[in-house]
Amino acid sequence: MRPSSLAVIGLGAMGGSLAWQARLAGVTRVVGYSPEPAEGVQALKASAITELADSPARAVSGAELVVLAVPPRATLHLIGTLGPALEPGALLTDVCSVKAPVVHEAVSAGLGDRFAGSHPLAGTHESGFGSARPDRLRGCVVYICESGTAQGHRAAHGVAEFWEHTLEGSPVLMAADAHDRQLAWTSHLSQAVASALAKVLAEQGWSGVSFGSGTRDTTRLAASNPDMWADVFLYNQSSVAEALRHTEEAIAEIRHLISGGEANGLREYLEKAQRFRRGIDR
Amino acid sequence: MRPSSLAVIGLGAMGGSLAWQARLAGVTRVVGYSPEPAEGVQALKASAITELADSPARAVSGAELVVLAVPPRATLHLIGTLGPALEPGALLTDVCSVKAPVVHEAVSAGLGDRFAGSHPLAGTHESGFGSARPDRLRGCVVYICESGTAQGHRAAHGVAEFWEHTLEGSPVLMAADAHDRQLAWTSHLSQAVASALAKVLAEQGWSGVSFGSGTRDTTRLAASNPDMWADVFLYNQSSVAEALRHTEEAIAEIRHLISGGEANGLREYLEKAQRFRRGIDR
Repeated sequence: MRPSSLAVIGLGAMGGSLAWQARLAGVTRVVGYSPEPAEGVQALKASAITELADSPARAVSGAELVVLAVPPRATLHLIGTLGPALEPGALLTDVCSVKAPVVHEAVSAGLGDRFAGSHPLAGTHESGFGSARPDRLRGCVVYICESGTAQGHRAAHGVAEFWEHTLEGSPVLMAADAHDRQLAWTSHLSQAVASALAKVLAEQGWSGVSFGSGTRDTTRLAASNPDMWADVFLYNQSSVAEALRHTEEAIAEIRHLISGGEANGLREYLEKAQRFRRGIDR
Repeated sequence: MRPSSLAVIGLGAMGGSLAWQARLAGVTRVVGYSPEPAEGVQALKASAITELADSPARAVSGAELVVLAVPPRATLHLIGTLGPALEPGALLTDVCSVKAPVVHEAVSAGLGDRFAGSHPLAGTHESGFGSARPDRLRGCVVYICESGTAQGHRAAHGVAEFWEHTLEGSPVLMAADAHDRQLAWTSHLSQAVASALAKVLAEQGWSGVSFGSGTRDTTRLAASNPDMWADVFLYNQSSVAEALRHTEEAIAEIRHLISGGEANGLREYLEKAQRFRRGIDR
């Protein structure tokens, strides 16, 4: 689908970027709502949206496609309450980094036939409309998770078309449970590790000294929105905990190699890590 | 000092950049030596050096200042053997990320009066002359560690002047032991954590999937030279091991907060990390 009328709830780095790009791609009517009034005004001034609504329910009125671009807890709340306000036939999606609870909530709320979850791999540690960019989503991989209901596949097809044709992304269909297990390792784990490293440095009182680009990059994700990430971790609890447990073991392993002066084992460890990291740049 | 004749041993990302920038800053004679012959030829073709020597001893002949830009183990070996080849009055420095063993070796080799260690915070995960840039060192903080001998202070002053006036860096004087303790936390820890994270992902078989910029940045350092980092870790053993132990505890703590569903504690943890990370960008 290529909607002529779109509603975007949440106008931060992700929702603001999405609205803006859809607007530039020619979607005639893009209605926004933000829980932060100042962000709504910024989005309107930037012409990222054509109208600013004063409630989510008013924002979705008349929209063919509704995108929820708020943290997981708020997304679940909106899915549970927004149904009566949606136009008949309107499609609904979200952009959360966890998908199983979101898809489950859509089915529970009776919206399974009109819902498919989206997760664009285009996150940033920045927050707010000030970090919205009209090209943030261009070219990104977007995981699409179907609801599994009778009409859910059609809804997923429509949502995937929107990502591909309006936003120039690359949609990839994936089951929600598999998505959440994969992302625990490929995204959520890095966020937790970056935060742990930053917390250690904070507690050791290293805030006043010089850091090279290495530690800046390794801890960059720690600057991300704490509320959003607390939600993601808690909604993907067991997979994230498992990934963290493996990481504790890997850190203990390198510590023992260092303490034991095991030069060969240490080099092999670092070579394995190097091969992997160079491989993901290809 | 502003040498008219410089020798650079090691022409990788760091030594190659240093030679190149010194050449462009007007140092008349820049003699290079590389244990990798191809890199020496590349450096000569790029005019990053004016002469290519076929041994470290021949490279330092006639040089007022000698910079060792090889990994720690090779640096220690050169300090221990190069003394007889140095010109009378020539100064010697290195660029290793560990300083105490290097300064100690210089004193043991009877070079304390002519040596000061350098550590420019301008590292990269890339290796080789292909990653040398004539502006890599411009503006970087450079830690200078004195030998503590009678004339060592004069040597450190000369080396610091070279960094400041020829290379446009910002030298900061620091005791070698304090440097190594600080860098264990502010640099070496991130390297080890990035490698641990990459090793975990490698072992879990995630190499074929899509990664966002978050995991790419968090693991970037894992692409660094394994030999160099094995040396750094082993020459800064106890401080790096202590920093890693604290990090294991911090990861266990966030894992328990997630597993226990402790939303408030988890948000506080992430907020502390966020404050720290935002603070180091100022």
